[in-house]
Amino acid sequence: MNLQQRQEIYETAKSWIFEAGNEIREHMNGPLGIETKSNPNDLVTVLDKQTEKFFVDRIHESYPEHHIIGEEGFGDTLSNVDGTIWIIDPIDGTMNFIHQKRTFAISIGILHNGIGEIGFVYDVMGDNLYHAKRGEGAFKNDIQLAPLDRKKKLEESIIGMNHFWLCENRVVDYKVTQKFVRTVRGTRTIGSAALELASVAEGVQDAYLALSLAPWDVAGGIILNHEVGGVAGDVDGNAWNPLERASAVVANPAIHSAIIEFLKEGRK
Amino acid sequence: MNLQQRQEIYETAKSWIFEAGNEIREHMNGPLGIETKSNPNDLVTVLDKQTEKFFVDRIHESYPEHHIIGEEGFGDTLSNVDGTIWIIDPIDGTMNFIHQKRTFAISIGILHNGIGEIGFVYDVMGDNLYHAKRGEGAFKNDIQLAPLDRKKKLEESIIGMNHFWLCENRVVDYKVTQKFVRTVRGTRTIGSAALELASVAEGVQDAYLALSLAPWDVAGGIILNHEVGGVAGDVDGNAWNPLERASAVVANPAIHSAIIEFLKEGRK
Repeated sequence: MNLQQRQEIYETAKSWIFEAGNEIREHMNGPLGIETKSNPNDLVTVLDKQTEKFFVDRIHESYPEHHIIGEEGFGDTLSNVDGTIWIIDPIDGTMNFIHQKRTFAISIGILHNGIGEIGFVYDVMGDNLYHAKRGEGAFKNDIQLAPLDRKKKLEESIIGMNHFWLCENRVVDYKVTQKFVRTVRGTRTIGSAALELASVAEGVQDAYLALSLAPWDVAGGIILNHEVGGVAGDVDGNAWNPLERASAVVANPAIHSAIIEFLKEGRK
Repeated sequence: MNLQQRQEIYETAKSWIFEAGNEIREHMNGPLGIETKSNPNDLVTVLDKQTEKFFVDRIHESYPEHHIIGEEGFGDTLSNVDGTIWIIDPIDGTMNFIHQKRTFAISIGILHNGIGEIGFVYDVMGDNLYHAKRGEGAFKNDIQLAPLDRKKKLEESIIGMNHFWLCENRVVDYKVTQKFVRTVRGTRTIGSAALELASVAEGVQDAYLALSLAPWDVAGGIILNHEVGGVAGDVDGNAWNPLERASAVVANPAIHSAIIEFLKEGRK
């Protein structure tokens, strides 16, 4: 993928995102066709599926040699990261989508031979597009995002994480998470991993921690973060693997190691 | 306070809120003058104080017989709820204000002889005004908010609460809160009590729980909730007392008792 090809893919993907976003907004006041997937809290709607299919059909048509990893199952099953891969979450934050009719996102990360080249997180109802190309910076709409503050301290940080970190879980002893919550300045829960990551890239919060996420939850947001200095990996500090579900710690570079160190004490 | 007087006070307060909001937005890109109050995490800025003083000065001038309870100390110390009382939080969500430059609110509740007559929650950066007069419904900008869904079940609810509910605290055994988090559909943390309450009134989330709040954190939002059927009180189900700091449970009427019952098991 040379820069000219990348620019063309970027422009095309962006136009598809706006088209899909329009479609979603137009349907927001209709019935959403809620099904339940593996459990009643794992909601999926007709619009999730339609939106993923919209992207998959267009990618197959325009870039038949590209691969796709998507939440709703219209993509491919991949065993390696060779070539160009689109990692797509058509609606990240489905519970917010259904319940709030806001605070959800379209997330797309495009990798070439394992390297994140293009990232998008589109806050559909707010009509805010976060976007990045490797080496060219990250943007919110037309505004370039500043590099993350390298003097940030853990005690002065706002951390995005859900409440399950403080319940019995497979990743970290909640007694350690309790100490962590009392150490940082504040904790928040948005309910969309993609928007949490966009908030980290924007410097609005300083890290996002998740017990278990799929590649499509984080691909777009991690590529954004790379452009402002954000560090992404799992709870042990291993680099992000775009083919695997894992825990996630995506953080301002000044506090990333401190978070890993803090949680290590309670690591299971 | 007759209806004509109330309407006049409502219109006047609304114009002051927009004026204060403009002032805050204009200053958002300047240095914020952060001080620390009782502890380093309890941030207060020059703008908090200026904004409260703005309201207090105007109320004194226009309504010298009214009383004021305000976060920043320019108001009165009251021992009863006689007469007309303005309960003001000039910037609710100071940490968001400083860190995110968004997701904070001006909150005003106006009571007459202990009864909430007028409520405002103004999302300053989103320019969304939630407003209500007793008996006339609650609105978000020009749109009237629907009555809350009386068929809502606890298991299908999204609950706003912070992470300290899951740490050692004086109100509820965190083991019970852990069960609670696993029982409801989802939990969220916005970081501004006023906006959490506006979200409950809007039906975007179904309850907001707080370990300890001052009257100014909740007055405006509770008055909004009354107009859509939302129930407000402390964690034991006692009615809200506008003169006291207390725990808070503000909820959709269909789940309010279920929340109180659930937490009772762990009540300290």
